[in-house]
Amino acid sequence: MSTKQPITPLDKAQRPLFLGIDVGGTNTKIGLVDNVGNTLGYTIIDTEEPRGPADAMKRVVVASKQMLEALGLKLEDVARVGLGTPGSQDIPKGMLIAPPNHPHWHNFPIVACLESEIGIGVSFANDANAAGWGEFWVGTGAKYSSMVLLTLGTGVGGGIIIDNKLVVGHSSFGGECGHMIIDPSPDARLCAWGGGRGHLEAYASASAVAMRAKERISSGTRSILTNSIKEITAKSVYEAAAKGDELALEIVESTADYLAIGITTIVHMVDPGLVVLGGAMNFGGTQSPIGQRFLARIQKTFQQLTFEYVFKGTTIEFASLGGDAGYLGAAGIAQADYHASQKKSA
Amino acid sequence: MSTKQPITPLDKAQRPLFLGIDVGGTNTKIGLVDNVGNTLGYTIIDTEEPRGPADAMKRVVVASKQMLEALGLKLEDVARVGLGTPGSQDIPKGMLIAPPNHPHWHNFPIVACLESEIGIGVSFANDANAAGWGEFWVGTGAKYSSMVLLTLGTGVGGGIIIDNKLVVGHSSFGGECGHMIIDPSPDARLCAWGGGRGHLEAYASASAVAMRAKERISSGTRSILTNSIKEITAKSVYEAAAKGDELALEIVESTADYLAIGITTIVHMVDPGLVVLGGAMNFGGTQSPIGQRFLARIQKTFQQLTFEYVFKGTTIEFASLGGDAGYLGAAGIAQADYHASQKKSA
Repeated sequence: MSTKQPITPLDKAQRPLFLGIDVGGTNTKIGLVDNVGNTLGYTIIDTEEPRGPADAMKRVVVASKQMLEALGLKLEDVARVGLGTPGSQDIPKGMLIAPPNHPHWHNFPIVACLESEIGIGVSFANDANAAGWGEFWVGTGAKYSSMVLLTLGTGVGGGIIIDNKLVVGHSSFGGECGHMIIDPSPDARLCAWGGGRGHLEAYASASAVAMRAKERISSGTRSILTNSIKEITAKSVYEAAAKGDELALEIVESTADYLAIGITTIVHMVDPGLVVLGGAMNFGGTQSPIGQRFLARIQKTFQQLTFEYVFKGTTIEFASLGGDAGYLGAAGIAQADYHASQKKSA
Repeated sequence: MSTKQPITPLDKAQRPLFLGIDVGGTNTKIGLVDNVGNTLGYTIIDTEEPRGPADAMKRVVVASKQMLEALGLKLEDVARVGLGTPGSQDIPKGMLIAPPNHPHWHNFPIVACLESEIGIGVSFANDANAAGWGEFWVGTGAKYSSMVLLTLGTGVGGGIIIDNKLVVGHSSFGGECGHMIIDPSPDARLCAWGGGRGHLEAYASASAVAMRAKERISSGTRSILTNSIKEITAKSVYEAAAKGDELALEIVESTADYLAIGITTIVHMVDPGLVVLGGAMNFGGTQSPIGQRFLARIQKTFQQLTFEYVFKGTTIEFASLGGDAGYLGAAGIAQADYHASQKKSA
C-alpha cells in the first residue's frame, strides 16, 4: 500500500474521487484516483483465483477501506468504482462469462456482487479496454480524440477509442485485436484461446515470441539461447538481442513485422491517428536500444504496407502508464460514467 | 428523373428535407429525401469525369433545381445537402485528395465549390461510408446501434457505425475494410489501389472474382466459361454458378471464405453485432439460390473462425437499399448534422 500524492488538503478540482480495480490472474491492483487522473493511493492484493470471485470482491473492499483510512478518507468519499477484469464478459449485464485464466470465476454476476459489498455504483470493463482508456485519459493518448491500444503480454489484448468513446462491442468483444486474423493459411499458428488459427496473438504475444525462438533453435539456428532453450521467455529473447544475438534480433524484427501487419489492418479499418503499444512485452521500450529498434521496425514496415498520407496521419508509440494503465483506466471509465449521469440528471 | 412519393401535401414529420448526392465514376445520383428517409424525388446525371468537379457540381445544382421544380419545390425547401464521393478525401477540410478513378478531380475543394453553387450547407462523406450510413438509417441496419457495411463492387469499400456514430477516421480513411490485410505472404495478391499486398479487395471484389476465375481456367480447370475466358466478369461467374458450373461454384465459395476471414477480423475488432454486404457483387443476393449459398457459406466459415458466443451475437445479412444507399446515406448524414447543429444552437 502506498500513497503517491499528499492527500490533504484535496484541491477542489480533484473531487470527486474514484476507485479503479484491475483484476489480473495473479494479483489485483486497486487505485484511488482523483477527477483529473492522479493516483492518490494504491494497494495490491493476491487475486487467489481458486477462492472465487465473491471472496476476491470481499477482499477488494477490505483492502480499499484500509487504503482509504490510511489516507484519512472513507468509502463515502468515492463517487464511483471502476472494475476491469479479463474477458469473456457481458458488460451490460455485469457478468463474467468464461475468462480462460479464471476457471473458478465463470458465469458470475461480478458487478452486482461488488456493488452490494461496497455500496457504490460500479462501472465494468474488459481489462485491456480499461488499459486503453487509461492511456487515452492520462497516458500516451491524452492529447488525442481516438486511439487504439495493443497490450503485448502473455496474450495480445486491445482497446479502441473512437471520438472519445470506448468501443465495447455488441458481445462485449470490442477491441479484441489479438484475435484478428493475420494469416489465413491452414497451417497458421494456433491461438491459445479457442484454437483459432492465424490470430495476431499467436505471433506477437510474449508466449509466441518465446515459442518462435524455441522453434528456430530446435530447427538448428545458432543462438546464445541454445543451452537454455527450455527456459526461453520473451524477456530472455530481449536480453539475447541486447547482447547482439542474431536469432534474437531476427525474432524482435519479425515480431515487429507481424504487429505492423495487424496495425495496418487496424488503421485501414478505424484510422485512429494513434496506435499505442502497451504491456510488458516491449523489448525494453523507449529506454532500450532494442525497444527503440522494435518500434522503428514497426513504423517502417507499417509505412511499406499503408498509403503515404495514412502513414503520415498515424503515430505509433509505446504506452506510458506501465502496469498502472488498468486501474487508472477503470477509474477513468467510472469517472466518465459518473459525469455522464450527472449531466443527464441535471 | 422520377418522383417516388406523392409530394403534396408533405406530412409535418417529413420536414425538413435533404438532398443526397452520390458521385460515382460514371454517373451521379441525386435524391430528395425527407426527414425520415423517404425518397421524394430522384434524378441521375452523367458524372463526365474529364470535365472536372466544378463543372459536375454546376450540373448537379441545375439537375437538383429541375427535380425540385417538378415536385413543386425550391432549393429553399432543402435544409442541408449531403455529398458522397470516392476517396481519398480530407473530410474536415471538404477536399478531394486523389480519388483513383477521378484523375481530373484531384486536390479540389469540392465542398466549398458546391456550397457556393447551391447556397446551402453541405455535409461531406466517403461514398462507401455514406452507403453504410444509408443502410444504417433506413436499410438493413435500421434497428441496430452499430453496423459495418462492406460494399462489394469493382473494389471493396466499407462503412463503420459504432454507437450511432460514423467512423470517419483521423485521415478520413475510416471503414476502408477493403484494404485490410488478409494474407501477409510475399506472393499475396496485389491491390489495384496503391499496390499493397494481400488486401481483402484483391480477393473479394468483382474484379478479383473475375481474375481468379480466369486464372483457374488458364491453368486448366474445366468450366463452361472457358470459351469466353476474355469476357469473364463476376456476373458471368454468377451465371455459370447458377447453371451448376463447378469452377464457378468454387469461386463463389472461396470468395465467401475470404470475406469470412475479413469479417472475423472486423468483428474481433469492433464487434458491431451486424455486418451488411452491399454492392452489386452479391451473386444475385437473397433472390437467388447462388446468393443464398454465398451468404450461408460466409456465415458458416465465420462460425468456424470466431468464438461461439461472438458468432451468436453477430448477424450477417445482405444490404437492402441497392444502388440508393449512397444518396440516401449522404442525405442521412446531412440530416444528422442538421439536427445536431439545431440541438447545439438551441
